[in-house]
Amino acid sequence: MAISAKEILSGDVQAAARLMRDLDDEIPSAHRTLKTLYRHTGRATILGITGAPGAGKSTLVDCVTGHLRQEGKTVGIVAIDPTSPFSGGAILGDRIRMQKHALDEGVFIKSLATRGHLGGLSKSTIDIVNVMDAMGKDVVIIETVGVGQDEVEIVKVAHTNLVLVVPGMGDDIQAMKAGILEIADIFVVNKSDREGADRTKQELETMVGMNTYREGEWAPPVMAAVAQTGAGVPELLSEVERHWKFISREENLERYRREKARVELMEILKKRLLEKAVDDLSRDGVLDLLLQDIARKIRDPYSIAEQVVDHKFGFHLTEGARKGKGNRRR
Amino acid sequence: MAISAKEILSGDVQAAARLMRDLDDEIPSAHRTLKTLYRHTGRATILGITGAPGAGKSTLVDCVTGHLRQEGKTVGIVAIDPTSPFSGGAILGDRIRMQKHALDEGVFIKSLATRGHLGGLSKSTIDIVNVMDAMGKDVVIIETVGVGQDEVEIVKVAHTNLVLVVPGMGDDIQAMKAGILEIADIFVVNKSDREGADRTKQELETMVGMNTYREGEWAPPVMAAVAQTGAGVPELLSEVERHWKFISREENLERYRREKARVELMEILKKRLLEKAVDDLSRDGVLDLLLQDIARKIRDPYSIAEQVVDHKFGFHLTEGARKGKGNRRR
Repeated sequence: MAISAKEILSGDVQAAARLMRDLDDEIPSAHRTLKTLYRHTGRATILGITGAPGAGKSTLVDCVTGHLRQEGKTVGIVAIDPTSPFSGGAILGDRIRMQKHALDEGVFIKSLATRGHLGGLSKSTIDIVNVMDAMGKDVVIIETVGVGQDEVEIVKVAHTNLVLVVPGMGDDIQAMKAGILEIADIFVVNKSDREGADRTKQELETMVGMNTYREGEWAPPVMAAVAQTGAGVPELLSEVERHWKFISREENLERYRREKARVELMEILKKRLLEKAVDDLSRDGVLDLLLQDIARKIRDPYSIAEQVVDHKFGFHLTEGARKGKGNRRR
Repeated sequence: MAISAKEILSGDVQAAARLMRDLDDEIPSAHRTLKTLYRHTGRATILGITGAPGAGKSTLVDCVTGHLRQEGKTVGIVAIDPTSPFSGGAILGDRIRMQKHALDEGVFIKSLATRGHLGGLSKSTIDIVNVMDAMGKDVVIIETVGVGQDEVEIVKVAHTNLVLVVPGMGDDIQAMKAGILEIADIFVVNKSDREGADRTKQELETMVGMNTYREGEWAPPVMAAVAQTGAGVPELLSEVERHWKFISREENLERYRREKARVELMEILKKRLLEKAVDDLSRDGVLDLLLQDIARKIRDPYSIAEQVVDHKFGFHLTEGARKGKGNRRR
């Protein structure tokens, strides 16, 4: 049975879980519900938590969730599972470490996995965030490694992005830092009881300091924390609070909403356009013939893509591909 | 001046570097050259090296390159820089650690950065690999963190994929392992002189052992190495050699080429379709109006995407969007 928007809006957890499953399964009624829900989104505060594997993201999410719950806020968590692009299914399901919140009705956890090859990850992240928002969750946390192209885009739907850095993770992280500046609203040196934490913090501060911030611009603070013990987390949360106030100013909020709209539209479009093209090409086995031709270097993928984009595809080329069948190995 | 396919096919490094730059700049003649080059690709052996930041990918690439050069093989290296999705430019340029190969004409190094938001990373990776292949490089190495959706797809164009794991990188890596199985042809426990290496190796072996491999299927071996000192690298390379022999069997090669063709076509299509849609929508400022409507919850991105895909967009909706302009804040 189709899940109605009303059920979601009332905060029904079972209904929300089913809707998410239906979206995964590409059930048309679920997409219709999502359209209706969209206008009820925008009430939740979205928090992005990004960091390399091992940076302690889940532990921090856990810790932050605990604090938010104490303040009486409801929380939705979307964990973009790094396993997912490989496995086609979330291995951990709902994260083990989050167990202590598992029985808390104020917390809704969803681990995301991809299905197939058509950018399912990014698309469903947006969908899930929107469902949680419409459900009435006060805060929606997106936990992601944030390395891939799509993942970086997605994180831009968050009001506030925390970027986790760990002391001594090698040159890769060092190299990464400069680039991360663009998405980080707050830097967190996690595991700050480890050797080298002060140096990492200082380096980040120097990096931030090298940027010139105009009046009314946000300069990302660098915070130290030990998510495992909770040390530094209250201070971190005051900075998050401060950023929320900053982003709530009308001019900032307007800019944020536009950017969110852009990311959403682009991600959804990208997925739908490719799906449609693949559907169209798959008819009469054209796609298979084309792939064979590419594999045998009879055609090149660039020209085919161009033809698809220009709508020069269809029966005309179908026929061409078929004609080619006889003398393929020229 | 346009770079001709002939210049590239002769192995001209200057020409190749310029072609890559022209591709970045979306110069039409560069795309034409790429089309011509495509049929000359397929000679290089493509090696993927995937691992989290800090796993020692660059060091291993360096080490493997040294070995390949000693065998008289020419090498192309495409480093997908984790900085790139954030910064819009490669921070490190051509990796510092690769300096010892920088003056070697047999090695061509390209660090990749993205530009803008339209999946530039994945698209150019394929282009660069194809250019290096057409140039006549014997081996093309793709170095990537392999976490994002696009990045995982890209790595499927490699004949052989090495997945690097480091002892003691925490639960995230532990969780990741099962999922990685799908793309790994060979596991490498790097930094195997560290504590916990044996356990990590054993766990990976257990995991591989839990899979059932049919006759003629490849079961990924788990190798130990210390890329920094070169320990274990010769043994690793014999396994790579063994996998190349495996993949060269006609039935395997056919399957690989089809998969490569699929990834190439899908990645190129995804990018071009979105570009075209954005171009079309941007005419007359329609896109801006639509984004404004989404931001204000007057329209939802799902319905808009559907309309674009169904070609119901264009003047009809343009007019609608304009009409809406007056009573936007209903």
